[in-house]
Amino acid sequence: MESNNYSISSLSEKALIERIIKLSKGRKSTLKGEYFNLIGDDCSVIRFEDKYLISTSDMLIESHHFPEEMSFFDRGFKAVTVNVSDLASMGAKPLGILISIGLYKDLKLSEFDEIFEGILSACDFYNIALLGGDTNDADEIIITGTAFGYTEKEPMMKYGLNIGDLVCLTGNIGFAALGFELLNRDEYKIYNQSIQANQSNQVNQGQSYQNNCDIVEYSISMALKPIAKIYEGQILLDSNVKVATDITDGLGSELESLLESDKKYYFANNQTDESSYNKGIRIYEEKLDISKDYLEISDNLDLDTLELKLNIGEDFELLFIIPFELKDSLNKLLDFKVIGEVIDKNTLEIVLSDGDIVNLSTKGYDHFKS
Amino acid sequence: MESNNYSISSLSEKALIERIIKLSKGRKSTLKGEYFNLIGDDCSVIRFEDKYLISTSDMLIESHHFPEEMSFFDRGFKAVTVNVSDLASMGAKPLGILISIGLYKDLKLSEFDEIFEGILSACDFYNIALLGGDTNDADEIIITGTAFGYTEKEPMMKYGLNIGDLVCLTGNIGFAALGFELLNRDEYKIYNQSIQANQSNQVNQGQSYQNNCDIVEYSISMALKPIAKIYEGQILLDSNVKVATDITDGLGSELESLLESDKKYYFANNQTDESSYNKGIRIYEEKLDISKDYLEISDNLDLDTLELKLNIGEDFELLFIIPFELKDSLNKLLDFKVIGEVIDKNTLEIVLSDGDIVNLSTKGYDHFKS
Repeated sequence: MESNNYSISSLSEKALIERIIKLSKGRKSTLKGEYFNLIGDDCSVIRFEDKYLISTSDMLIESHHFPEEMSFFDRGFKAVTVNVSDLASMGAKPLGILISIGLYKDLKLSEFDEIFEGILSACDFYNIALLGGDTNDADEIIITGTAFGYTEKEPMMKYGLNIGDLVCLTGNIGFAALGFELLNRDEYKIYNQSIQANQSNQVNQGQSYQNNCDIVEYSISMALKPIAKIYEGQILLDSNVKVATDITDGLGSELESLLESDKKYYFANNQTDESSYNKGIRIYEEKLDISKDYLEISDNLDLDTLELKLNIGEDFELLFIIPFELKDSLNKLLDFKVIGEVIDKNTLEIVLSDGDIVNLSTKGYDHFKS
Repeated sequence: MESNNYSISSLSEKALIERIIKLSKGRKSTLKGEYFNLIGDDCSVIRFEDKYLISTSDMLIESHHFPEEMSFFDRGFKAVTVNVSDLASMGAKPLGILISIGLYKDLKLSEFDEIFEGILSACDFYNIALLGGDTNDADEIIITGTAFGYTEKEPMMKYGLNIGDLVCLTGNIGFAALGFELLNRDEYKIYNQSIQANQSNQVNQGQSYQNNCDIVEYSISMALKPIAKIYEGQILLDSNVKVATDITDGLGSELESLLESDKKYYFANNQTDESSYNKGIRIYEEKLDISKDYLEISDNLDLDTLELKLNIGEDFELLFIIPFELKDSLNKLLDFKVIGEVIDKNTLEIVLSDGDIVNLSTKGYDHFKS
């Protein structure tokens, strides 16, 4: 274990959470019995009456989570979305949300109203109640949401993989990542002017350019106005899907996290040695729908396209694993794409478009690592 | 309504919350129906199955809530306590807590561990589970706890006063306020040296001085290591007490808040004009147990004793209202003191020790007012 004099930046967020779990071992407050041991999963679950009560908490901090271009309305909306997305990943029906907010004293009343218009509009959108919370003064805007909901049956978890299962996504990814990159670049201003011009003058700048504009606009919108897949999550659970997570921390790190959780669950339930666990995930670049225009823009910005798609995160899509047999019936209820499968090999790999197979290096966003 | 260009510091916290309630009017997310309209109360309540599900969220921010002298352990413990105290005020049995935490990157691992030792020890102490949460990097330590629990019957609320009811407190107040004042003064260092000397050398400095030391030590402990009255809250609800709140924002402002909630409830349930509401609260200075030594120390520090007792807050005692008939039976289960009564007059007043009756000016702690 690291020297206690090291700073927390010497550890990843995951390692810090492992540290908390280690500290909690042997205590009364250890998660056990009627509680599911879920620190590290998106939500916590409590058996309550004949239901499963699901709760989750996420903190957004201005300097780290809100780009300058994000309106006060969108900040409020997103604070609800990040929490609802965690409920979605378990298939929960949301009940309500509490919002604890820190604000600086010279925030204008109009800005205060905008933040809460965003929060309340998100509550309307997801059909949940704003239940209460806490207000504080702070040096920057800090919004902690805690949402809870319930499921009638066992919620979707991060474990339960079977060889041959399909790895699926509710939607397209990598656009929020591109959007955040664009917001930091001068190129965005140029694209944005073209978009404005297009909108006001209806000038047709040619198909290819227009498509780029569409992608820019869509990416910025995915970055600033993400939507949680709450209804999709409920459809998945209703359809007996057992394994799901959201991918706000990046597809790569979530795939890795699924394998880790599944491995832990396997060892907890089978008294065998490490070598007997033999499952992995293979995904396919060509299934990630990387369009010519997306490629062109990311190339222009000198960005690694796969890095954008796999490792940046901020997509509010659901990643889920289903038995092959479920594919057709689920397709009738929900749009989704199959991007890979569970294989009988201890690996996490991607088959590139040229046929090469490489290990998926996971560099999902981590707050503390410096 | 104030100009939108004014900053939020032009409004009190209460006024800001009223503003949120106004913004939520007419929306789907308005609190109604199966939800109790409780923004402004300590917790939110949802009818769930045949139980009442109670939730609450409180954010603590280093620069505003943690004096330098507060250990990392105590900061973690207090983040749990402030939330459990809100559950206590409703008589809830706690289920668990989520902790979202913001930390600066150069926090030492040993300090990180201490914070979580404090959080986990508090969870053990209150017999609740740490269910999960979120970690983030921030410029200072920010801890948002969201606790939830449940009651079998309708929880204690802030309304339901009847003329002749007794106004009661679970314990003594004003010590945390004195403690926080002492921490800011040089006088504390002198007292503290005496305490250290007394403890190590067992020197008897005379009864009066020792008592002062006791009060100083007790006050500092109330400021840095407060304990929520979770079991007391459950006893009160089990004993059919209907009205309770914690008084962390100050006794004066909580008494005012009880009257306001009761008045709102009255108007919501009786189609009458304002003049027909005719209830008030009278408390007595002599019931506040202001000892000679407490008076001496607060005088020495040039502090207004009643202000310390009534308006600073940070006491984790429960304030509750009971019918006169309940007093004797409740006394067999719980230590508490009667400090006043509900009277048939629109007032909030205190009878001073010299017999004078004055209006209770409420200046409970407010974050935003500048």
